[in-house]
Amino acid sequence: MSVPTSIEFHPEFRSRSVSKLVLVFFLLPCLAWCADVLPSWNDGPTRRSIVEFVEKVTTEGSADFVPLPDRIAVFDNDGTLISEQPLYVQFAYAIDRVKELAPRHPEWRKKEPFKSALEGRLTTLESESHEKAFADLVFATCDEMTTTEIDQAATKWLATARNPKTGRLQTEMTFQPMRELLEYLRSKGFKTFIVSGAGIEFMRNYTEKIYGIPPEQVIGSNVKMRLESRNGSTELVLVPEMEFLNNRQGKPMGIYKHIGRRPIMAFGNSDGDFEMLQWTTSGESPRFGAIIHHDDAERETAYDRKSHIGRLDKALDEAPSRKWTVVSMKNDWKTIFSSQ
Amino acid sequence: MSVPTSIEFHPEFRSRSVSKLVLVFFLLPCLAWCADVLPSWNDGPTRRSIVEFVEKVTTEGSADFVPLPDRIAVFDNDGTLISEQPLYVQFAYAIDRVKELAPRHPEWRKKEPFKSALEGRLTTLESESHEKAFADLVFATCDEMTTTEIDQAATKWLATARNPKTGRLQTEMTFQPMRELLEYLRSKGFKTFIVSGAGIEFMRNYTEKIYGIPPEQVIGSNVKMRLESRNGSTELVLVPEMEFLNNRQGKPMGIYKHIGRRPIMAFGNSDGDFEMLQWTTSGESPRFGAIIHHDDAERETAYDRKSHIGRLDKALDEAPSRKWTVVSMKNDWKTIFSSQ
Repeated sequence: MSVPTSIEFHPEFRSRSVSKLVLVFFLLPCLAWCADVLPSWNDGPTRRSIVEFVEKVTTEGSADFVPLPDRIAVFDNDGTLISEQPLYVQFAYAIDRVKELAPRHPEWRKKEPFKSALEGRLTTLESESHEKAFADLVFATCDEMTTTEIDQAATKWLATARNPKTGRLQTEMTFQPMRELLEYLRSKGFKTFIVSGAGIEFMRNYTEKIYGIPPEQVIGSNVKMRLESRNGSTELVLVPEMEFLNNRQGKPMGIYKHIGRRPIMAFGNSDGDFEMLQWTTSGESPRFGAIIHHDDAERETAYDRKSHIGRLDKALDEAPSRKWTVVSMKNDWKTIFSSQ
Repeated sequence: MSVPTSIEFHPEFRSRSVSKLVLVFFLLPCLAWCADVLPSWNDGPTRRSIVEFVEKVTTEGSADFVPLPDRIAVFDNDGTLISEQPLYVQFAYAIDRVKELAPRHPEWRKKEPFKSALEGRLTTLESESHEKAFADLVFATCDEMTTTEIDQAATKWLATARNPKTGRLQTEMTFQPMRELLEYLRSKGFKTFIVSGAGIEFMRNYTEKIYGIPPEQVIGSNVKMRLESRNGSTELVLVPEMEFLNNRQGKPMGIYKHIGRRPIMAFGNSDGDFEMLQWTTSGESPRFGAIIHHDDAERETAYDRKSHIGRLDKALDEAPSRKWTVVSMKNDWKTIFSSQ
């Protein structure tokens, strides 16, 4: 009886055999080496599923190898890369900005949501109607400002603004395990993008500094604009009217308009990310979708189905059938915040 | 009398002196070396102005040095990187696609602009009203197609479609000097973007292959979309209604939404690029704006103020006062088309 060597295998079987060889000679040693990556993640099925996926799509010769240009990974921002409790970062900025602009708008003292913002009553997102309040405040704060002026105002605010619950700088409220994930993916040739419901004019002032993600890789909502001459310079002026809402089904549309390719990895934390995860993981080649589950009341805030901010309900229900990984902040992360 | 050395200069003068030293020790040798770059450009003021600008913004220590992330260069596509005569590439595609779809649309035989397209009368853009015809045909050809299907149809068409005037493949109608410019800029750390009035769903199927510009660096117009389940897969379906027209003042808006930074170089060829050039060159640090002037009737097509395609009138008038470089295809380019 002859014992077949891999070279003698029927072609149909040979490819499987090659895949196994790849697994043995490349993936397994790598998995050992990979103990060094994602140090803030506990070793367990979640961390392993991420590393195994990344290794199989980036190992040449692997049946699931993905060429460099298609290694696109997308991340929601608020609640996925940075804490969104008790308020989205941009909401906190808008409230402070309203206070700053109030002397020029005496009418705000009697008009909602400005009245509540000025009286310090918008400290949490307590009801659905606050979504509308959020939009109204953001619109009010960008009214008639040039994009250059918005950049200056946001940068100035971000330098000192603190999270009202923890007292830490807002820009220090990022999740260390996710920052490690961004770096790990980039080290494997991935392009990392933010896909957020927040406004591009605000977010882009801190995403490069804290995540290493340049403005051109930040996809978000945007208001309308007009081109205008100001002091001899041609400027884009923001008009307080929504042009594109990059949330829910807007997310895959924003990704298509901006990137033009279907990502192979997507990370979110709320039902606002459902369609992004659905579209990403619906592609033909290997895909990875994950939900960050805020289940750590002690180290962060525990919330999901009933929260008015970052509500996670439908996506949590459908995660198992859609093979999305649910990341437990409590069990999967050794550390929550960066620079702790 | 003591002769001051550069180290003894008053600080105010020292910086100027350093700039001069930089010029002598870095820029001048580079200009000699740079004789090798842009080989299809005739040596003259135009080529020199480009090289001098690029060298001064990329030479460390130069007073005009621009850090890597801000080296953003934007290019119109039709008429700037590729011939737009006798028709925009996407217009030619839309006409062919209408012919392909005609059996399913008997009503088109009596309805304009479909009737003219089917009878072969839309061979040039003869009047202003053809802009509307262009939009109607493009909308008709994307109706109810998923983004995946559009990619397949466009890729198939591009593989064999030929320019009706020259008989060359449409994808071979690119301008060799501009391809060299893209490569030169990228070799100096620039990120190159396309900013076109054409549809992203069409352009992105050839821009990476022929210009080395990936889909995520292609900014264009887009129609509305909806998310839909098709054969068990989640797909984006194009809806035949304009969502964003990336032309004229839409161009700086498209750039801001997509890139989030003001470019430092912009290249266009028509009044549709006026606002992009205006906004780009209105920035504070050194900026470079250029217009490709189609003045070579022999090797391409000579057209400007009276053309219905790529009309160049206002931008040509204002170029001198705005310090935009006018590139003469006839005098500045040794070669026009790539692979000649």
